[in-house]
Amino acid sequence: MNQPVQPAALRKPLSDALLAELKLLFDDRLSTAHAVREHHGRDESSYDPMLPDAVVFAQSTEEVAAAVKLCSKHAVPVIPYGTGTSLEGHVLALQGGVTIDLSHMNQVVAIHAEDLTATVQAGVTRKQLNQEIRDTGLFFPIDPGADASLGGMAATRASGTNAVRYGTMRENTLALTVVTADGRIIKTGTRARKSSAGYDLTRVFVGSEGTLGIITEVTVRLYPQPEAISAAVCSFPTAADAVNAVIQTIQMGVPVARVEFLDENSVRCINAHDKLTLPEQPLLLFEFHGSEHGVKEQAETVQQIAAEYNAIGFEWATRPEDRSRLWTARHNAYFAMLQMRPGARAISTDCCVPISRLAECILDTKADCEKNGIIHSIIGHVGDGNFHVLMMVDPHDPADVARAEGVNARMVARAIEMDGTCTGEHGVGMHKMEFLVQEHGVEAIETMRRIKHALDPKNILNPGKIIQW
Amino acid sequence: MNQPVQPAALRKPLSDALLAELKLLFDDRLSTAHAVREHHGRDESSYDPMLPDAVVFAQSTEEVAAAVKLCSKHAVPVIPYGTGTSLEGHVLALQGGVTIDLSHMNQVVAIHAEDLTATVQAGVTRKQLNQEIRDTGLFFPIDPGADASLGGMAATRASGTNAVRYGTMRENTLALTVVTADGRIIKTGTRARKSSAGYDLTRVFVGSEGTLGIITEVTVRLYPQPEAISAAVCSFPTAADAVNAVIQTIQMGVPVARVEFLDENSVRCINAHDKLTLPEQPLLLFEFHGSEHGVKEQAETVQQIAAEYNAIGFEWATRPEDRSRLWTARHNAYFAMLQMRPGARAISTDCCVPISRLAECILDTKADCEKNGIIHSIIGHVGDGNFHVLMMVDPHDPADVARAEGVNARMVARAIEMDGTCTGEHGVGMHKMEFLVQEHGVEAIETMRRIKHALDPKNILNPGKIIQW
Repeated sequence: MNQPVQPAALRKPLSDALLAELKLLFDDRLSTAHAVREHHGRDESSYDPMLPDAVVFAQSTEEVAAAVKLCSKHAVPVIPYGTGTSLEGHVLALQGGVTIDLSHMNQVVAIHAEDLTATVQAGVTRKQLNQEIRDTGLFFPIDPGADASLGGMAATRASGTNAVRYGTMRENTLALTVVTADGRIIKTGTRARKSSAGYDLTRVFVGSEGTLGIITEVTVRLYPQPEAISAAVCSFPTAADAVNAVIQTIQMGVPVARVEFLDENSVRCINAHDKLTLPEQPLLLFEFHGSEHGVKEQAETVQQIAAEYNAIGFEWATRPEDRSRLWTARHNAYFAMLQMRPGARAISTDCCVPISRLAECILDTKADCEKNGIIHSIIGHVGDGNFHVLMMVDPHDPADVARAEGVNARMVARAIEMDGTCTGEHGVGMHKMEFLVQEHGVEAIETMRRIKHALDPKNILNPGKIIQW
Repeated sequence: MNQPVQPAALRKPLSDALLAELKLLFDDRLSTAHAVREHHGRDESSYDPMLPDAVVFAQSTEEVAAAVKLCSKHAVPVIPYGTGTSLEGHVLALQGGVTIDLSHMNQVVAIHAEDLTATVQAGVTRKQLNQEIRDTGLFFPIDPGADASLGGMAATRASGTNAVRYGTMRENTLALTVVTADGRIIKTGTRARKSSAGYDLTRVFVGSEGTLGIITEVTVRLYPQPEAISAAVCSFPTAADAVNAVIQTIQMGVPVARVEFLDENSVRCINAHDKLTLPEQPLLLFEFHGSEHGVKEQAETVQQIAAEYNAIGFEWATRPEDRSRLWTARHNAYFAMLQMRPGARAISTDCCVPISRLAECILDTKADCEKNGIIHSIIGHVGDGNFHVLMMVDPHDPADVARAEGVNARMVARAIEMDGTCTGEHGVGMHKMEFLVQEHGVEAIETMRRIKHALDPKNILNPGKIIQW
């Protein structure tokens, strides 16, 4: 699996002194059990687990700070852990150390409905937040698929299906509470919607994947639930037609809330998994938010555009149960696709390009998969120029894995050549470190490295991720 | 004027060697003439000028890099200069040094209409950009009032009237070309609309006011010109009514493109300046963008809300000339207000609070002005919770200046207490450095300082701004 090795030279067993000090702080919320360590040494990437030496379950920012101070004193790696749903090896304990599990920090700290903001502990998941604010008439739009924690979503700059309309964690995080590498506690912002007050610490930590600080609280923007929601689905004879319909929709400024592309392989999988009968052709799935009239107007405009691109069977779904069935199928797509090749493991990757290059990037990547005989599917948040490739490989066949990694590397090179990025929303983790250099160039990477060295001089925060020390 | 002193101890005259080296590079685009230095040693703040020792007019990123390399070698301050429209002393040469004027870097590098992006040199102004893209059907929304350069707007994290709908420079800058303190050239991003690829270097430099690097190119998002635009204006018996109408508009999710509050003093000034006959009461000025029907629907909703808050005379302006007359008057407000007290100088300040606290913050600040007998006006981008206070003071009367600075300090303290920020869009410059500490706390400031030290170890980039070395 292109598996990096936990470098023995960098690993040293936790000292008894550190373990004793952690024990004093966390008591039975400290674990060195193999099963617990193994659970925390994996994510949803294709990597084999890499185990931390110990796991602590923190209940407050102060506990996180205390744990980090101890680890700093002993120069031991610290890895924050939310729901373990990252995709590029973000939480694997490459150099061992202590994983801080934040899932017990699951309190909604404050809901300010009148200001459209909420402050939550890092372990609160997006579904939990939406559940807790349901009665306010507001919702939190960012939806990366998995029911991830808000801390993890901030740390990986997550986005997902609604980003085309509502932005990503980059735009929707107002402030963070962060524990620094030396165990200080800082607040990076306020609840003001905008600010010109000094360096943008919030966005220094958003997307830093636990390598610059540990996020313990997140203040996010909320949005009024739209008066009306409708969905539409239509198929196209070719992927190019589908993507070009999206490009024109965006260029015309139609404020679609979601627009998802599914290739024919994805459609086939969700038909099987969710007992649907969608035409097994490239498909677009739209959602519109607005007033009753506004939603109708948007859908009509999109229907006209789709028709110009040879759409087949533009269907509306305004009833909640129909919308929900379609979107549930979309959300199940990942699991549906895992069944394409039983016994295989999934290599999942993503990239993001300027939208005018999207059709070309998807088609060339698809052709590359086919040429290499890789069972794959492509799904995209195409309104943003972002798409995912899921490749099913035999983990025991190095040639198979190499073919998939080759497709991945060429997709990334293609995206970068188009002035796009090696990852739109999955993040870098361990898997895309060399692509990051390719994308940014050595001089920009050097600037990133200086920031890392300034904020984590002992390299204890999630070492071995994003950039080489 | 609460005027900081250029510290003699920190100033050393430029060496002949450095001047000779700059002369070789810039020839007659190097100036040490007093008039040129004085022009570059001031902005629109109330500070007296502080002159750099020399000014160079750069024509390319490479020239900026060469100049910075020389200044770095000689450990001499470097200050980037765009249009000089900053408001908090950002470009004043507190420690002397070399100002790099970027106004000759005024080329639009690339317009990618199909991707809704444009890349410009730092000296391109927002009006120039909008002029150059007019035929594409797109526009660049950020409008801080002044016809600022895009480089300066990025460096100060500018926003303005449209931010409530389209965001600020924080959200709309996709990538920057930056010259680092040691004269390297880096690109901070790509043209992809979103990315999870590494540290967010773009937002490290956006808002850093020339203290972390010199921005030489900016890639921004563009938006389709709306199908329909309409404006509306209405007066209210009290400022509280006006602001509460805005709060409800935002909470209901009406996607207003602009909503500006003007207090009765502001209205009086623009009536006099622009020969208008608006009722001299608190006033809201709205702009709606959307489809023909959508715009009508938004305006009707807002009219209903305004009526609930005792609005007087809700008037629509759909004809471009009427809209333009109202918004021109709004844009002239700053100059109109300067005429309130001839011979006086303006102290301009801003803050931003969670919107539920906005009415209280404005009213308390207004009461404080009145209690202190300060001729003032308040204008706000109230959809974001952001407002400006303009206070007219006699620069030769220290007590008058002290009263105004007292109002400013109490306004900031009030905003911070409300979980808001000491500046929504003006920036820190020299004037708000102590407030920055008040807002963020010493630990967060320490993190900012570590970033500054890491990226500018010799403290040559716009020294003495944002944070104390």
